[in-house]
Amino acid sequence: MTWGEKAQERLTRIAECSASGPGVTRFPFTPEHQDALEHIRAWMECAGLTARLDAAGTLVGRRDGKGRTVLLGSHQDSVRNAGRYDGIMGIALSCLALEKLRSENRSPRFPIEVLAFADEEGVRFPTALLGPRALAGTLDPGVLEMVDQDGCSVSDALDAFGGDKSSVMSLARDPQGVRAYLELHIEQGPVLERQDAPVGVVTGICGIERSTITFRGETGHAGTVPMAGRADALVAAAGFINIVHDEARRVPDLRATVGTCSVSPNVANGIPDTAQLTLEIRAPSDGARKEFSVRMTKAAKTLAVHRGGQVDIRRTYEQPAVPCASAIIDGLSASMAKLGHSPIKLSSGATHDASAMSGLCDVGMLFVRCRDGVSHRPDEFASSTDMGAAIDTLAEMLVSFGSS
Amino acid sequence: MTWGEKAQERLTRIAECSASGPGVTRFPFTPEHQDALEHIRAWMECAGLTARLDAAGTLVGRRDGKGRTVLLGSHQDSVRNAGRYDGIMGIALSCLALEKLRSENRSPRFPIEVLAFADEEGVRFPTALLGPRALAGTLDPGVLEMVDQDGCSVSDALDAFGGDKSSVMSLARDPQGVRAYLELHIEQGPVLERQDAPVGVVTGICGIERSTITFRGETGHAGTVPMAGRADALVAAAGFINIVHDEARRVPDLRATVGTCSVSPNVANGIPDTAQLTLEIRAPSDGARKEFSVRMTKAAKTLAVHRGGQVDIRRTYEQPAVPCASAIIDGLSASMAKLGHSPIKLSSGATHDASAMSGLCDVGMLFVRCRDGVSHRPDEFASSTDMGAAIDTLAEMLVSFGSS
Repeated sequence: MTWGEKAQERLTRIAECSASGPGVTRFPFTPEHQDALEHIRAWMECAGLTARLDAAGTLVGRRDGKGRTVLLGSHQDSVRNAGRYDGIMGIALSCLALEKLRSENRSPRFPIEVLAFADEEGVRFPTALLGPRALAGTLDPGVLEMVDQDGCSVSDALDAFGGDKSSVMSLARDPQGVRAYLELHIEQGPVLERQDAPVGVVTGICGIERSTITFRGETGHAGTVPMAGRADALVAAAGFINIVHDEARRVPDLRATVGTCSVSPNVANGIPDTAQLTLEIRAPSDGARKEFSVRMTKAAKTLAVHRGGQVDIRRTYEQPAVPCASAIIDGLSASMAKLGHSPIKLSSGATHDASAMSGLCDVGMLFVRCRDGVSHRPDEFASSTDMGAAIDTLAEMLVSFGSS
Repeated sequence: MTWGEKAQERLTRIAECSASGPGVTRFPFTPEHQDALEHIRAWMECAGLTARLDAAGTLVGRRDGKGRTVLLGSHQDSVRNAGRYDGIMGIALSCLALEKLRSENRSPRFPIEVLAFADEEGVRFPTALLGPRALAGTLDPGVLEMVDQDGCSVSDALDAFGGDKSSVMSLARDPQGVRAYLELHIEQGPVLERQDAPVGVVTGICGIERSTITFRGETGHAGTVPMAGRADALVAAAGFINIVHDEARRVPDLRATVGTCSVSPNVANGIPDTAQLTLEIRAPSDGARKEFSVRMTKAAKTLAVHRGGQVDIRRTYEQPAVPCASAIIDGLSASMAKLGHSPIKLSSGATHDASAMSGLCDVGMLFVRCRDGVSHRPDEFASSTDMGAAIDTLAEMLVSFGSS
């Protein structure tokens, strides 16, 4: 059995740690999470690590050594009705890379940890990234009081699970003692598949901004108000949706999406007086993102006036881009080249545990091709061969890290 | 007091026959309707008419005479929180026109009726136009079994009100005995106000068609799927909304409105895979409406393909246009000219009792200017002067009708 096949088998088995329903549903601090930790604990032991649950519910597998610690990891949780790879694959492949090196007697001498974070998806609680934020010292203590839909707080869920709410804020690591955080993850997009590449080096995690954009016009009877002189809010919004899409296509690596649209009064025979959209812009360059955002704000205002109405734009969220450390990008690229893979580079449009870990140390990521770019669905799939390539790349990278 | 002021006073008084809340709320077959009939009965008596409630709940005021009957009328009901003019004004002005002629000893000799229909707005029951359809012999008996939100059927409401469900289907009039139906109504649009005209002759009631148009694409993560290669259903729908609006502006008298839009999955970070719209097209010419509809169907298909998806178009409603009789258009125009009003002509984008009455006889309508084109709101307003102009126009028209 190859290392990639071993990964496939482990991921198939741990997929059974799931709430009922199609695909995998594994929320943080649940019985399913508890079951999954038994598997992960075993993986860590095979890799020569000693496992313990930290106060934030992160399962930490550690092997001591000399020098600064290298952290590997990803998250154990999934969205509802998810697949078998998103998150959990990164933990599995990190353990297998260490197990492989150990079997080859090539284990690096620096201290190493695999981190199995509890909650990256943010589905159970209206927050996410508790574990990495605690390690980075960037956790807002108010997060602990947030509740799930049954009224259970993060604190209570954590304590019942074996964590310790009173120590979470003391988990922050000393940046001096940490060298880097490295995460393997499925791509969740079609780029590697289109380039026929098993793995790709992530150059950075996109910054994100979201805005609520409300076009206002004037309602009226769709039969009695002539076309000339109407101020139809949906017509203005429609022009904006097209401009966003067509202009975003011209900016390399930028993504802009109008994902929601709600109309008022929303009746077949009423001219819309309000059309509210959300605009999400993501880009690996904060400058490119902001420039695009300013341009779209101008376009929205011009369109609103052109269609006889107004527009109100409210920024609801902003998260800067996280560049990956060039030493890690170069190291992963060199390992890939050594293994005969072309060193494809791409940016990550999605947020990952690495985003929060960047508050502590240099971060880097390696993406694994996934079929049809599909994630968050039961048919999410990464092949044994591709996972094997990722294991090999990470192992070579760790060896070179040890010698640098 | 002028006839227009008399109309204003009567409409102010009858506005008190309303359920509680802002503005007027008077649904069919309610205590408010019953109260309103007392007012209308008195108006009819002042006009020299004898009032009776017919089996469908229409208050019929009649004065016998020689030759074919001329019918006047409109509806007593309102939407929720409506104004004081829509519907009821047509009844009031018809009675006052007859009262004025009577006071001037100029009453025409033909039989004349004023019809105060119960339900034109279709708010209480999922149907409307019971009274005129019964007279025209076009009523679907199944309508009598429809229920309001309290489970009360049209039949039961009618019987409790003093109508007679068992005779409704026998109300159909002999077309040979009827000469025309003439209705006065507020414009519910801005055309007369823009032309500074108190009244306008309606040339026809627009045909209407409604379609549900569903654009389909492919969803995906708004961060991980590159712009190129997306099949964003909302982007396709947005292009369509703009084409509908901009092309409709080029077709005289046509109105096309996308009034509703719903998106799936409708989340900020998900590419829309479905965008469903309603398209309503209205035009006084069925040919122009159909030609436009065919053109928009083609445009939707082209856009869907251009954006990498598909589109499904389903016609949900169609109602042909009702042309007004040229004799009535000419008669009203001549009366207006005689009174010094420029004979403005316009089409009606909204449906009226006249639409259903066209199943029985020639129909015609006179529109009265309303402030800011507003209707179905408490601030709906028509001036005494304008209502006076409408009373005069109708009275002259009836006199000329009598001599022709």
